[in-house]
Amino acid sequence: MEPGKEVSPFLIFETINAYQSSNAFAACLKLDLFSNIKAEGSTADDIASDCGMSQKGARVLADTMTVHGFLSKEGGTYKLTEVSEKFLTKDSPAYLGGTAQFLLTPKLTEGFRRIDEAAVKGGTVIDEEGTLGDDDPVWIDFARGMMPMMMPSAIAIADHLEWERDKPLKVLDIAASHGIFGIMIGQKYPNAQIYGVDWKNVLPVAEENAAKFGMAERYNKIEGSAFEVDFGQGYDVALLTNFLHHFNAETNSRLIKKIGESLNPDGVIITLEFIPNDDRVSPPGEALFAAVMLATTPEGDAFTFKELDSMFREAGFENNRQVPLPPTPQHLVISTR
Amino acid sequence: MEPGKEVSPFLIFETINAYQSSNAFAACLKLDLFSNIKAEGSTADDIASDCGMSQKGARVLADTMTVHGFLSKEGGTYKLTEVSEKFLTKDSPAYLGGTAQFLLTPKLTEGFRRIDEAAVKGGTVIDEEGTLGDDDPVWIDFARGMMPMMMPSAIAIADHLEWERDKPLKVLDIAASHGIFGIMIGQKYPNAQIYGVDWKNVLPVAEENAAKFGMAERYNKIEGSAFEVDFGQGYDVALLTNFLHHFNAETNSRLIKKIGESLNPDGVIITLEFIPNDDRVSPPGEALFAAVMLATTPEGDAFTFKELDSMFREAGFENNRQVPLPPTPQHLVISTR
Repeated sequence: MEPGKEVSPFLIFETINAYQSSNAFAACLKLDLFSNIKAEGSTADDIASDCGMSQKGARVLADTMTVHGFLSKEGGTYKLTEVSEKFLTKDSPAYLGGTAQFLLTPKLTEGFRRIDEAAVKGGTVIDEEGTLGDDDPVWIDFARGMMPMMMPSAIAIADHLEWERDKPLKVLDIAASHGIFGIMIGQKYPNAQIYGVDWKNVLPVAEENAAKFGMAERYNKIEGSAFEVDFGQGYDVALLTNFLHHFNAETNSRLIKKIGESLNPDGVIITLEFIPNDDRVSPPGEALFAAVMLATTPEGDAFTFKELDSMFREAGFENNRQVPLPPTPQHLVISTR
Repeated sequence: MEPGKEVSPFLIFETINAYQSSNAFAACLKLDLFSNIKAEGSTADDIASDCGMSQKGARVLADTMTVHGFLSKEGGTYKLTEVSEKFLTKDSPAYLGGTAQFLLTPKLTEGFRRIDEAAVKGGTVIDEEGTLGDDDPVWIDFARGMMPMMMPSAIAIADHLEWERDKPLKVLDIAASHGIFGIMIGQKYPNAQIYGVDWKNVLPVAEENAAKFGMAERYNKIEGSAFEVDFGQGYDVALLTNFLHHFNAETNSRLIKKIGESLNPDGVIITLEFIPNDDRVSPPGEALFAAVMLATTPEGDAFTFKELDSMFREAGFENNRQVPLPPTPQHLVISTR
């Protein structure tokens, strides 16, 4: 038996133990370990007293985060790494702790713990409608949590929109959530009016963000379900971001048709989605998203471009173009009639 | 903003989502997906009907396993990879599905979900004694599940024991569990008598395994707690495998002293442990084990060699030698007086 020639079960144990890094990371965010690391470095004793935990807990969590690359350690002193300093300390404008805590919400992780049952059934076994119930409070957490993560895509969408700077622009933002997609368009186009559609309890988050960006008077709320509420008329652009993956193809075509009825004839729909290749196993980030939808939604999926193209054609949009947004695992689909 | 120059939050999302691969993998084992992949390959439809799940569930789980390297996919056909064929199909003698299912026991994963509380407290918050209660049924699952994973280390221990082939040898196996460590010594030394110490409900598993290896009459049971039961006298070797990490240093020294009292003056103790370097953040497998002990035991730890050496010296064993066992994350400590 030559070393290295044998198939090693390493990958198996790595996969079994993977959940431990999510849990340890979540614990550090909850205890705000990263914000408490001093610029000159902190010892386990410092962390213990600054975060209100045992010396042993501080040492083990800090060592674990060091192994994962979120801290460095020299002697007994821990320091932030680039990634933790930028994204994991509360004072940083790019703080992602809220996003992380949302993504580790027990309601979402519970769906995954029962993905065996979801696989048998063909959809989530959490509640009747997974996380999608009317006014589910998870969407408020989502709105607050996901904004920093979505900022790069929001900027990319505004960049891909070709419009004259000062010309009036009417934008429909479906399932606006934090509102950042519409807001970034509003930042680029001073005469843009944004109409955000979402549940009544969520829209105040978008409104709040619009105010932060100095465009409260250009932000308009349309409260209710995107499938039922009247969007009004005369939109130049509709944004359909991270929404289609929650539903089946037929439901999506119906929604796109409804959006089309509110859109000007030369209007454009900009969709943001996880879009795996036709093989459905690449790229990894896009492909793995299918399991998230299986575990947490009744009929959602990570659709291929072919599938999305066919939904849009079904709804009267013949020209659909895919634009990848590296390094994110997301892509745009830009659609016109 | 040059691409590649910016710090990416990729590591954060990878860490957040890590639990999903554990869950999806556990689901595939539970549904016995790997054993059901045909030699000529299976489609999602085949997997759905062979494993009793929805077509969509089969497709999403199989794609997810393909991304993780446990299947390959060509066209719509999935095949086993080397690692899944060897370790994840029930007919394979190296099947690790039982081990994996043990390691993903809700009682163990629950400890990790509450590692924030464990960090505050300095030890597990699951039950009063974590998984360590008297006759806790988790140890029966452990005994059955962990044997295949421990086989390479068991063979290594027998290899490191220097003894004349036919000379009588009396071996004390502390917390024998599946019994495989003592049994492998018995395989190498035909006149070895093995004395396995463990809870009354667990020892039948070791006995069963001894019978499988044709040495039932050389396997002797000592039922009870290693801290309380009388081991008897005249042992040449004591095995202390994956046991010390559950307890604090003082408790361990006391146990080693008790073992010493049953050991011949020139007897040897062979310890198997996760032993991180003094920095406690390398190698990764060894270092990360400290968090497992924080989450699941009251006072356990991944001890450094210095710490173990000091426990053994405290108990009268002055000569302690560390032997790494790559590619496993475990090491031997070979101790004499």
